[in-house]
Amino acid sequence: MAVNKKLNFPKRKKKKSRQQNKLGKAPGTISYMGDKERSDSIIYSTTYNADSFETKEFSSLEQFFKEERNDQTSWINVVGISDEPFIEKLGKHFNLNPLVLEDIVNTEQRPKVDEYDDYIFGIFRMLYISEEEEIVGEHVALVLHENTVLVFQEVKADVFNGVRERITSKLGRIRTRGADYLFFALLDAIVDNYFLAIENLNNRIEILEEEVYQNPEPVVAQNIQQLKKEILKIRRWIFPVKELISRLIDTENTLIKKDTKLFLRDVLDHAIEINESLQIYREMSMSLMEMYMSNMSNKMNEVMKVLTIMASIFIPLTFIAGIYGMNFDHMPELHYKYGYYVVWIVMILLFIGMMIYFKKKKWL
Amino acid sequence: MAVNKKLNFPKRKKKKSRQQNKLGKAPGTISYMGDKERSDSIIYSTTYNADSFETKEFSSLEQFFKEERNDQTSWINVVGISDEPFIEKLGKHFNLNPLVLEDIVNTEQRPKVDEYDDYIFGIFRMLYISEEEEIVGEHVALVLHENTVLVFQEVKADVFNGVRERITSKLGRIRTRGADYLFFALLDAIVDNYFLAIENLNNRIEILEEEVYQNPEPVVAQNIQQLKKEILKIRRWIFPVKELISRLIDTENTLIKKDTKLFLRDVLDHAIEINESLQIYREMSMSLMEMYMSNMSNKMNEVMKVLTIMASIFIPLTFIAGIYGMNFDHMPELHYKYGYYVVWIVMILLFIGMMIYFKKKKWL
Amino acid sequence: MAVNKKLNFPKRKKKKSRQQNKLGKAPGTISYMGDKERSDSIIYSTTYNADSFETKEFSSLEQFFKEERNDQTSWINVVGISDEPFIEKLGKHFNLNPLVLEDIVNTEQRPKVDEYDDYIFGIFRMLYISEEEEIVGEHVALVLHENTVLVFQEVKADVFNGVRERITSKLGRIRTRGADYLFFALLDAIVDNYFLAIENLNNRIEILEEEVYQNPEPVVAQNIQQLKKEILKIRRWIFPVKELISRLIDTENTLIKKDTKLFLRDVLDHAIEINESLQIYREMSMSLMEMYMSNMSNKMNEVMKVLTIMASIFIPLTFIAGIYGMNFDHMPELHYKYGYYVVWIVMILLFIGMMIYFKKKKWL
Amino acid sequence: MAVNKKLNFPKRKKKKSRQQNKLGKAPGTISYMGDKERSDSIIYSTTYNADSFETKEFSSLEQFFKEERNDQTSWINVVGISDEPFIEKLGKHFNLNPLVLEDIVNTEQRPKVDEYDDYIFGIFRMLYISEEEEIVGEHVALVLHENTVLVFQEVKADVFNGVRERITSKLGRIRTRGADYLFFALLDAIVDNYFLAIENLNNRIEILEEEVYQNPEPVVAQNIQQLKKEILKIRRWIFPVKELISRLIDTENTLIKKDTKLFLRDVLDHAIEINESLQIYREMSMSLMEMYMSNMSNKMNEVMKVLTIMASIFIPLTFIAGIYGMNFDHMPELHYKYGYYVVWIVMILLFIGMMIYFKKKKWL
Amino acid sequence: MAVNKKLNFPKRKKKKSRQQNKLGKAPGTISYMGDKERSDSIIYSTTYNADSFETKEFSSLEQFFKEERNDQTSWINVVGISDEPFIEKLGKHFNLNPLVLEDIVNTEQRPKVDEYDDYIFGIFRMLYISEEEEIVGEHVALVLHENTVLVFQEVKADVFNGVRERITSKLGRIRTRGADYLFFALLDAIVDNYFLAIENLNNRIEILEEEVYQNPEPVVAQNIQQLKKEILKIRRWIFPVKELISRLIDTENTLIKKDTKLFLRDVLDHAIEINESLQIYREMSMSLMEMYMSNMSNKMNEVMKVLTIMASIFIPLTFIAGIYGMNFDHMPELHYKYGYYVVWIVMILLFIGMMIYFKKKKWL
Repeated sequence: MAVNKKLNFPKRKKKKSRQQNKLGKAPGTISYMGDKERSDSIIYSTTYNADSFETKEFSSLEQFFKEERNDQTSWINVVGISDEPFIEKLGKHFNLNPLVLEDIVNTEQRPKVDEYDDYIFGIFRMLYISEEEEIVGEHVALVLHENTVLVFQEVKADVFNGVRERITSKLGRIRTRGADYLFFALLDAIVDNYFLAIENLNNRIEILEEEVYQNPEPVVAQNIQQLKKEILKIRRWIFPVKELISRLIDTENTLIKKDTKLFLRDVLDHAIEINESLQIYREMSMSLMEMYMSNMSNKMNEVMKVLTIMASIFIPLTFIAGIYGMNFDHMPELHYKYGYYVVWIVMILLFIGMMIYFKKKKWL
Repeated sequence: MAVNKKLNFPKRKKKKSRQQNKLGKAPGTISYMGDKERSDSIIYSTTYNADSFETKEFSSLEQFFKEERNDQTSWINVVGISDEPFIEKLGKHFNLNPLVLEDIVNTEQRPKVDEYDDYIFGIFRMLYISEEEEIVGEHVALVLHENTVLVFQEVKADVFNGVRERITSKLGRIRTRGADYLFFALLDAIVDNYFLAIENLNNRIEILEEEVYQNPEPVVAQNIQQLKKEILKIRRWIFPVKELISRLIDTENTLIKKDTKLFLRDVLDHAIEINESLQIYREMSMSLMEMYMSNMSNKMNEVMKVLTIMASIFIPLTFIAGIYGMNFDHMPELHYKYGYYVVWIVMILLFIGMMIYFKKKKWL
Repeated sequence: MAVNKKLNFPKRKKKKSRQQNKLGKAPGTISYMGDKERSDSIIYSTTYNADSFETKEFSSLEQFFKEERNDQTSWINVVGISDEPFIEKLGKHFNLNPLVLEDIVNTEQRPKVDEYDDYIFGIFRMLYISEEEEIVGEHVALVLHENTVLVFQEVKADVFNGVRERITSKLGRIRTRGADYLFFALLDAIVDNYFLAIENLNNRIEILEEEVYQNPEPVVAQNIQQLKKEILKIRRWIFPVKELISRLIDTENTLIKKDTKLFLRDVLDHAIEINESLQIYREMSMSLMEMYMSNMSNKMNEVMKVLTIMASIFIPLTFIAGIYGMNFDHMPELHYKYGYYVVWIVMILLFIGMMIYFKKKKWL
Repeated sequence: MAVNKKLNFPKRKKKKSRQQNKLGKAPGTISYMGDKERSDSIIYSTTYNADSFETKEFSSLEQFFKEERNDQTSWINVVGISDEPFIEKLGKHFNLNPLVLEDIVNTEQRPKVDEYDDYIFGIFRMLYISEEEEIVGEHVALVLHENTVLVFQEVKADVFNGVRERITSKLGRIRTRGADYLFFALLDAIVDNYFLAIENLNNRIEILEEEVYQNPEPVVAQNIQQLKKEILKIRRWIFPVKELISRLIDTENTLIKKDTKLFLRDVLDHAIEINESLQIYREMSMSLMEMYMSNMSNKMNEVMKVLTIMASIFIPLTFIAGIYGMNFDHMPELHYKYGYYVVWIVMILLFIGMMIYFKKKKWL
Repeated sequence: MAVNKKLNFPKRKKKKSRQQNKLGKAPGTISYMGDKERSDSIIYSTTYNADSFETKEFSSLEQFFKEERNDQTSWINVVGISDEPFIEKLGKHFNLNPLVLEDIVNTEQRPKVDEYDDYIFGIFRMLYISEEEEIVGEHVALVLHENTVLVFQEVKADVFNGVRERITSKLGRIRTRGADYLFFALLDAIVDNYFLAIENLNNRIEILEEEVYQNPEPVVAQNIQQLKKEILKIRRWIFPVKELISRLIDTENTLIKKDTKLFLRDVLDHAIEINESLQIYREMSMSLMEMYMSNMSNKMNEVMKVLTIMASIFIPLTFIAGIYGMNFDHMPELHYKYGYYVVWIVMILLFIGMMIYFKKKKWL
């Protein structure tokens, strides 16, 4: 993992465009906020019940609307949310409030859950680890109708492969249950992937810890600060989830059945655990910085000791040599036969005395 | 953006006059608190319904009162609040409580929402970015009556141009809805502009971060502290908004209709998001200061190392030269043929030894 | 403002006597706690209604009790609370609980509001700025009866002159309203004066900030710490007020009429604002200390750089001079015609090299 | 007060025995936890009503049980709680739950209040100042029955002498009220003594503050840390009291009469005040440490300045002297008539220049 | 206790496998998470009533299921939870929800309590001190049925020996009470053992404190940071327990009888106390780090003083010697008879002057 690489400071372009796009527009205006290149949306539709399942792919809405959907459970997965008219038509078909559509395409939207009369709408961040071992957070919107779960995501990569496989392979109870269970299963997949982010942070803390102890370079301090920033960012995505799931469990909306709430309680448990971990990592990153500072201070001490020892030993000796380098006419010692040797002995004794003194002070 | 300029310390004059103005006066006394020069108030009145709209400008109250307003929605925009008698008469016309009028002209008033029997009254700060790229906070007061929204502001510049355009151009649903929707639209415009302040702070943090890493001058520390102060100031303006909007959503007052509350929920979302960002920026500015200190410490270490290396190498060598500068009669080495060259060799070996030692200590 | 003067450490005498006075005594024992010299109490009685008002001064209770008070509103202002029997008799006359009397004379009592069957009792701190520009906090007790407000204060100086004037001059609505409005007006005066304390703190922070940036002497650090202590002290006086006023607004006690509560809501607003300011000043004083430390660190860096530059330049040069001060018989360089000049050139080149090196390191 | 003495680190023996004693034992097992030597328990019984009172001392339970107690109020004061069978028998006599007895002899028990059907049980810490001016915290258990208050304490010293005197001398209203008032009076005495601890802490903070400013030795830092630890310890004893008294005030248990609750409200006030003080002292002790660090840093600066000034002045001068100590054959300056004096003048000018430079830098 | 040993940084393997195991699996999938080697599960069954008790050991489920259990209280202790099919069959036998089984084998599960219709399920951490004096936290799951308590643990070592002995030896009331009392007794044993962890932390803080004061090596800082991490980890295990027990006390589930709740209140008390201790230890570990930094700073000061004293004394003296080592033709002092002695006297006077100066500065 490339923890030690030098940081570069990207100029934020996303937010700026957000302001320019958004300011002064009427609420409920659907305008894509993301930084991905605009592309067509594709719909992946999966319908299933206990006995059968079918997967289809649509790139035009007309085709999709023609398709008949009986009382099977449907998972409508929309990939690509930059095509606003597409989203708007789809939204109308499913009777979604314009404010909901606005949130769906607003990739900066913070996690939220809103209940409407005939559907429940949620925005979350799905986290996964990129190939560069970095934590990526992607905007995802879920809408639960009676028999349908709509999923909106920016790119095709997601965290739902496990759910797909369970449907395909008829694993677990997913095929025998309704849309609310699918909704839960997707939420569960999102939250389970938070553990990967947590693990990634944990690994980085461990690497940084080792580096702080063994090689406290300035770049390590930068990496600690970078880590702190990332924890702040991720906490912002993860922190609200706990309360949102709580609200789903307490809702009186009949879209979520009572036995599915039992499963949501499990997801809530995980969300709480993840929040606790983030809190702990935050405190640990602060301790790391503290430790870094203490090691810096320690190194300074080491440097100062070397200087002090060298200076304290050789400056007095040089002074003695200086004395007998003077050119006075009358300096009797200069003419003693063993004067030179006596001076050497005095200097060696002084040296030994100094060494003993520093030894006693534990500077050596 | 001129982040690096030296700070100057303006003496606060505003507050002082506030104390002198206010102390001992009866509550409900209407006295302007701002630091703008007193000027006449102007009323911009916009009346509209789905089919028509009209904009008028009044500089005298008499004229304004004569104007008949049928059951259309009216937006009465008062610019200039330093003319107390003007405000008082207007207030009486609209049946406003003296305490409300006091708050309208009190530019230091913290954001608040008060419900009265037949109107809802709110004070907010609108934030925008000045041409000097600084965050400016202007006092604005909103009053929602059945068919009318009163807006009081100090200067003409405001954040409501988008709303004006939507009315003029009949964009979105604003023309078909009543005064409560207008009230929401204005609030929405105020809160949306907070994102600009947030973005401004974010940019400054990024610039400071770069400077801390690359050029940690004392002026950078001053700028970090200045940023912290500004975040504190802005937080004070923004923090209460969250709760105020929450209260508007929960109110049983029929002035705000149920479907407008759905929109207010959206504004609440934004207010929460902005508060979170401010909290994160606060923590990041603390990290910046920490990083600055760590870099200072690091630079000190560098300086000390250079000193120690220079002193540790040359002080012993100077001592050796000092030895053979002594003038003893009997110093046999002086008369050796290669004495001088031996001394040079010894000194060079010492030098190399030192270099190896410092290399091993990773000081070089 | 004398912010820069050296601190002196007065031994606390007050608290000690408090312990000696108080310990083991029965609760409800009335014993004066203040540090003022004991003196006689004087009663200033102001009675008024919409049409008339009258002010009298009594130094004996007998006289005061003889006075007949019809259904007018009375403001009984007691100055001097060290005469316990006086307070006790007065308390009996107004039917006050002994615990209330105990609190009235306890100048260390923290702000509180207690409701009794036929009166409401409150303890507050009134803050004003002394002539030495220091914040002074005086204990004041208010008792609201049906038609009477009792005020107990230690010394004559108070913050109620504005209220007095409004009564005398019949300004505002005070003369037309009852005792509960008077009670509010006094509370309002107390809280309004908190703004003066806040302003004083703000000024001191600004002065200290300037000093930290321009002249970070140790005395500045002391003053910052002193400021922090004072903020803690003042917060203790001001913090509870918010909740107390809240409680007065929510009370079901009929002593406070509904329209007076509207005014109290205004006072509550101010109390909240003041608390926020204190919180901000607290954070700013912490930032100041941080800045002070960073400046210290910076100055140290400066000192070290000078030392390092001087030593790094002259120690090697001295070494070279030392070499050619040696007395070996065979030192060919000594006999070269231009040896001396070559040495000078070498030394000058070394000097220039060093300067370039330090320039590149930005130490110059 | 011996604030400056060196700390010694006693090994904790108490807790170890606690674990060995306690682990695996059935709940409700009565086993003494304290570190006092085991000794016999003595019962001091005080019975009184408005007209009479009587004090007796029992060292055997048989005698005590024989004693008839009519409808007077009884204060049964048990000194010594290490004799478990004694406590058990007494507990059975008064119908106490084994869990209550377990808590009574558990000297490590944190403050608590438990209500049972016919009695209220409370554990508190009484604090007093020892002769060595240290804060001592003693475990005390109170049980309120209809007519009886049981008090259990480890040693004879306690904080109840004031209460005893009020009973003996018939001061205040204690003799005319029942057991619940006695219970309150004891609680009041305990809480009033907390002020002594608070005062002691305050004095120590003031002494440390003076020392930090005038003589920042390492031992001062140790004392500050020691103070912080003590504040943490005391807070643990005092913090829960606030809530416990609150609960006593809100209880529907008829053992505590309504007018006694009025007095408890007073105790609650004190408990809140004490908690606030502790909080302030905690922040002040942190400031002290900060100040200590800043003074250390300042002293370092002073040391560095002296070094830099000495080195910067004399190293260049020594270099000049070194130049003219060289032995080149051709050094024209050496033969100038006034060469020596010129060198002196140059050196003196250099010295003066340096002094001016350092003066300008404010290092002198 | 080996506090001073160098830290090593184990790579976490557990979590990684967790992710690989868990991701994409259906909820309610039972998969062992621990890092112990997989082994067979063994069931220790203890059945008892007031008159009799019996202990049996089963390694096959068939045998266990055959066993008849009358209306006695049963304690089914399952050791080893890595054999998933075993756990699943057992779970079906006792009618446990798959989500419960998932938690039972999930050794990373955070403490929780879930109530189901006919059983109560709880996950806790039992802490004990290993032979290496380290705090070990083992996952334990408790299930309370009407007459049965199921206990699942990874390894045989546990904290329940005291409970076993009380059952065997018929100590206390355990044999006469039902399964809910057994459940409480096990919980009580778990919480009581937390005190051992607390004591271990306390001892380590005391040792570190001593080391910080007497020998502040870098390894001490590492140990302080290590301690902080461990406190964070343990707090995570212990913190939720308080609330969980609270919930058990407040439950309306009839599985826990009213008089057992009285005992649970006692456990709650302990849990609160332990949490408080952890909080205090956390603050103390922060103080330790602060003290370490202050001691580092102090040592640096010491080093600097020695350097400054040596340099300040000998550099000027060397300069003087250098002066008279110059070779000018005209240096009158060199030819004075007592010149050499005068120089010595001057140098000695300078030395004494310096010493007095440093003495006055308290650097010696």
